[in-house]
Amino acid sequence: MNIDVLQLSYALDTFYFLMCTALVMFMACGFAMLESGLVRSKNTVEILTKNALLYGIACLVFLVVGYNVMYPGDNAISSVIPGLSFMLGADNTLSDISAGEGAAYYSSMADFIFQAVFAAATMSIVSGAVAERMRLWPFLIFAVVMVAVIYPVEGYWKWGGGFLDAMGYQDFAGSVVVHMAGAAAALAAVLLVGPRKGRYGVDGKVRAIPGANLPIAMLGMFILWMGWFGFNGGSMLKIASLDDANSVARIFVNTNAAASAGMVAAALLSRAMFGKTDMTMVMNGALAGLVSITAEPLLPSAGLAVLVGAVGGIIVVLSVVGLDRLKIDDPVGAISVHGSAGLWGIMAVLFSNPDAAFGTQILGTLIIFAWMFGASLVALLVIKKVCGGLRVSEEEELEGMDMHECGMGAYPEFVNMSSPSQGEGTASGHAGKASAAVPAAVLKGAAR
Amino acid sequence: MNIDVLQLSYALDTFYFLMCTALVMFMACGFAMLESGLVRSKNTVEILTKNALLYGIACLVFLVVGYNVMYPGDNAISSVIPGLSFMLGADNTLSDISAGEGAAYYSSMADFIFQAVFAAATMSIVSGAVAERMRLWPFLIFAVVMVAVIYPVEGYWKWGGGFLDAMGYQDFAGSVVVHMAGAAAALAAVLLVGPRKGRYGVDGKVRAIPGANLPIAMLGMFILWMGWFGFNGGSMLKIASLDDANSVARIFVNTNAAASAGMVAAALLSRAMFGKTDMTMVMNGALAGLVSITAEPLLPSAGLAVLVGAVGGIIVVLSVVGLDRLKIDDPVGAISVHGSAGLWGIMAVLFSNPDAAFGTQILGTLIIFAWMFGASLVALLVIKKVCGGLRVSEEEELEGMDMHECGMGAYPEFVNMSSPSQGEGTASGHAGKASAAVPAAVLKGAAR
Amino acid sequence: MNIDVLQLSYALDTFYFLMCTALVMFMACGFAMLESGLVRSKNTVEILTKNALLYGIACLVFLVVGYNVMYPGDNAISSVIPGLSFMLGADNTLSDISAGEGAAYYSSMADFIFQAVFAAATMSIVSGAVAERMRLWPFLIFAVVMVAVIYPVEGYWKWGGGFLDAMGYQDFAGSVVVHMAGAAAALAAVLLVGPRKGRYGVDGKVRAIPGANLPIAMLGMFILWMGWFGFNGGSMLKIASLDDANSVARIFVNTNAAASAGMVAAALLSRAMFGKTDMTMVMNGALAGLVSITAEPLLPSAGLAVLVGAVGGIIVVLSVVGLDRLKIDDPVGAISVHGSAGLWGIMAVLFSNPDAAFGTQILGTLIIFAWMFGASLVALLVIKKVCGGLRVSEEEELEGMDMHECGMGAYPEFVNMSSPSQGEGTASGHAGKASAAVPAAVLKGAAR
Repeated sequence: MNIDVLQLSYALDTFYFLMCTALVMFMACGFAMLESGLVRSKNTVEILTKNALLYGIACLVFLVVGYNVMYPGDNAISSVIPGLSFMLGADNTLSDISAGEGAAYYSSMADFIFQAVFAAATMSIVSGAVAERMRLWPFLIFAVVMVAVIYPVEGYWKWGGGFLDAMGYQDFAGSVVVHMAGAAAALAAVLLVGPRKGRYGVDGKVRAIPGANLPIAMLGMFILWMGWFGFNGGSMLKIASLDDANSVARIFVNTNAAASAGMVAAALLSRAMFGKTDMTMVMNGALAGLVSITAEPLLPSAGLAVLVGAVGGIIVVLSVVGLDRLKIDDPVGAISVHGSAGLWGIMAVLFSNPDAAFGTQILGTLIIFAWMFGASLVALLVIKKVCGGLRVSEEEELEGMDMHECGMGAYPEFVNMSSPSQGEGTASGHAGKASAAVPAAVLKGAAR
Repeated sequence: MNIDVLQLSYALDTFYFLMCTALVMFMACGFAMLESGLVRSKNTVEILTKNALLYGIACLVFLVVGYNVMYPGDNAISSVIPGLSFMLGADNTLSDISAGEGAAYYSSMADFIFQAVFAAATMSIVSGAVAERMRLWPFLIFAVVMVAVIYPVEGYWKWGGGFLDAMGYQDFAGSVVVHMAGAAAALAAVLLVGPRKGRYGVDGKVRAIPGANLPIAMLGMFILWMGWFGFNGGSMLKIASLDDANSVARIFVNTNAAASAGMVAAALLSRAMFGKTDMTMVMNGALAGLVSITAEPLLPSAGLAVLVGAVGGIIVVLSVVGLDRLKIDDPVGAISVHGSAGLWGIMAVLFSNPDAAFGTQILGTLIIFAWMFGASLVALLVIKKVCGGLRVSEEEELEGMDMHECGMGAYPEFVNMSSPSQGEGTASGHAGKASAAVPAAVLKGAAR
Repeated sequence: MNIDVLQLSYALDTFYFLMCTALVMFMACGFAMLESGLVRSKNTVEILTKNALLYGIACLVFLVVGYNVMYPGDNAISSVIPGLSFMLGADNTLSDISAGEGAAYYSSMADFIFQAVFAAATMSIVSGAVAERMRLWPFLIFAVVMVAVIYPVEGYWKWGGGFLDAMGYQDFAGSVVVHMAGAAAALAAVLLVGPRKGRYGVDGKVRAIPGANLPIAMLGMFILWMGWFGFNGGSMLKIASLDDANSVARIFVNTNAAASAGMVAAALLSRAMFGKTDMTMVMNGALAGLVSITAEPLLPSAGLAVLVGAVGGIIVVLSVVGLDRLKIDDPVGAISVHGSAGLWGIMAVLFSNPDAAFGTQILGTLIIFAWMFGASLVALLVIKKVCGGLRVSEEEELEGMDMHECGMGAYPEFVNMSSPSQGEGTASGHAGKASAAVPAAVLKGAAR
């Protein structure tokens, strides 16, 4: 190709990558909104702060070391152990892009930042599962370890050219490498911190703890859905040819179809099971559809994408109910959405990708699960020891994390009631010291 | 052109289409936020669920059959009756794009998904108008019929190469084909379900029913505005040449100018009429400006775009007031924004497009209105019969749709008051069974 | 270059510009959300309306005259005084883009709208600083003057080819030209309108006035962060070559790194200073990191970008505390974020840009500050005279601007309490006339 055309092609691929990066970056906002809408108002500021800081920390840590661990190139020690180096190298030159076969076709800076926002997404999954009880800074220290080492190591195994890739493990955009991986870390954290106080009654019954702001949660779902076009679409890595452009378009179609099908399936199932169209199931169904198609959004026909997504939507409803039976308390359903649906997604690759083998998909997934769960458990136990505990005190949990961790409430002006379903017997925990003043103001108004 | 350059051009046009798709897809979120902010808190979860599910259902139905009805190609039976076929065909090949005149210049998958998000937008318009009283599932069944048949048939008439296109009807991005069409369906639905309880007093007076969360509504407006860059900009269909790139840029300028002018005009008029700068009118003015320019965002000068938008902003204020005089209850002003401004927009084409004829614009619009209104009415009457009614029971309306349809409240922790303007005489309907406990908690706090 | 390739290059550059425009346009939403979350509920509708209208007015005024003032081309009278002309000229032709050196490489319409959303951003900065007390329409009249004259004149000095550019002043994307400029205007306005009632006690103590809806504020931060990719990335002006594509990618990396570092630094410092991880400082830290890197997002290494951002995050915390000591009341921290961090950003250019000179950076910044502050002060004093005051009456401030200016409350259903920290001694100001009914409803519920 003519060098002018090559440069244009490089520029288009880079621009496409950067737009996908912006979309995936915005998923950090999606997670923050989803989670802050689904927790109680007394824990809202803390989960917002956690989500914002984890994104920033993930980007910094991935820049300093994580990216190099995940993509060691010639520094790799073995196909299991990646190398160690720091910061970013130089970007491509004209000779890099005109090298013919194997030439660079987009900026390596664009590659870095696209990968960085993926690393942040993995960590965002964890934050929702441990919401309302895990302390802020121990969580953030865990984020450092996760993005510096735990996630990049398994990322290296598959996407960095390690042994999982060599054995033929297939995971296009990360149903397992990102989503189930995040869920496995979340599961380790949830088992360590335990369920929220009052979630499971002495009688063994699950008590609903409704989220404080559902429009914000739905906003989060829509942002995640839009962001997924960048997540899956960008994982094609290039667009500047007929075949690649067709592929990216197909990924958009399949991603959207799977999300739609997962949502509708979860809605129908929740209506059948509970008699109501449960909005949290509707949201989780859409997200489960997205997670399910992520392992292979390119090869399925649109019809198959609908099926894959629909099954994902059904799985997530059953998984949410099932985890509660096991007293695994996941306030936003993150383990079900990213873990259970991720497992389904990785196996659904078998329907359309002839290169995928049943045994390899199972084995690779088990290895990633074991690594993510085990390494996270060890890291969290060390952090627990060093920080003097992972969980807030009983008093803090009762009164809410917002005042204790962040010194402010999310909705300081709205008079709050203690939902009887919370089983905590206290009013308006989020308002902290101001709580005694609330009814006074109300009564004063009444007396006028 | 050289085949490498052709491929790049194809890739750029496809990528542009996909980015516009992401923006228009996000309009589904914009509608959800706008509507959920403008309804009462007791009906918030239901409208969120409705908006999410209608988007998913629209995408699925359009995939299975709607797209083929709208764009039957050689399957068309006549210029009035489109053909019937299912699912998507193969994408373009190298020979398709190098065919010279009439060659494909973007992925047909990208075309599908761009059209699909338009179909969903049409249906989103309806949801706002029937908010707070139309049952969830009858609405969703109507969405199936709408996106499978009603919308694609009139879409075929204009954009699929049917008789409206042949007779020279001009509607660039859908002031009528999408927006007024949606408003016509909404009008049919509103006439069938009737006004909200308490909206019109026995004395004939209109009682304000304020929305519960105005920041969320404003968020919706901004999202819709941004999405409209994709809606109108993407309707150019291609960008990969000097002329096309200039055209898309001009569409961005005109779209933004019309929205700005509509917003400012509505603000000034509302201040003159009511003495206050009514925020809902400000939002509706911007949206009306956007709808008005949609029929012809390319040919007007920026100055003309300002005028078209400003008149749209004035029309929407008068239309909102006028519809209430007629006791047509439209909680979010959807019929005024998309219908009244859409009508103005289709006629405003005459100022800049020499191919548009007054009589043709009128006639075509009447035909589309008659079809959309009539077909929707018939479909809704059948659904009413089959589902045992379109409207929730009096009790459900009083207590709120959220607990009855979805089993949860949008803001379960915030103590709610019954706005006296609602004229319903009940407190905090949204909290359902928990409502008796609210003041108890408050009073207990007071007693401390 | 071949004309087909030139056209493709032109189309890609134009498309890139338009996507960046969409991102920066959405920053208007980000400002609206950030500010509406950080004010009290009784002033929320007003700040939303203000932000929406200022965006529309800015776009219209910049179209009619501001753009021509800022970029007078051959109309310029001198390097200090730009020319005056109206509306937009014709777009580029094939001969414009094939002129070799100095040829046009993107649509001039795209250039206009990208610049327009920058002008709007400048004005958005002011709105936050004067929140909760400056009257709506005097503010909007100020927006007209600002975008017609004040901002474009200093913009001309640097970006339009005026004397600051000639003397070698370096400000890539506007740490000073946009952000500190907006902050200087905001400072003038804040000094004229004075602090909010109750902000500073007789004892000299600062009383916290917490924002009503922190998830919405955090949403605003994320939107601004995403939008900044367009703000800084688009300021490269072109992408369609290897070097330009690499540059835009690098700008994305540095912008994201600086934001992350600013956020984390502010979080750590706030925790050290206050004992809590203050969410508003976390948000302002991220925004300060973004402002800091805006003057030079291209040349620093990623490591330097981290340092520049981190220092910005520290500065903003100190600045917020410091301004309160001076009794300069800035409800959202806009002057600290855009002004103090902007000052740091312009000096940080010296670390990476060999063309920047210490004295020139200082001198240019002083000139811009003096102009923006002085011209704004004069304009505001004239507006004060003409409109009969810039500030709402005591009664309006107490009861809230929403009912008085816009005739509606932001959250009319939620029972509101008067936060004791507000020191105003009244309950639920935002509900206006309805406030007496609130407790009645609550008590009625209790009596059941």
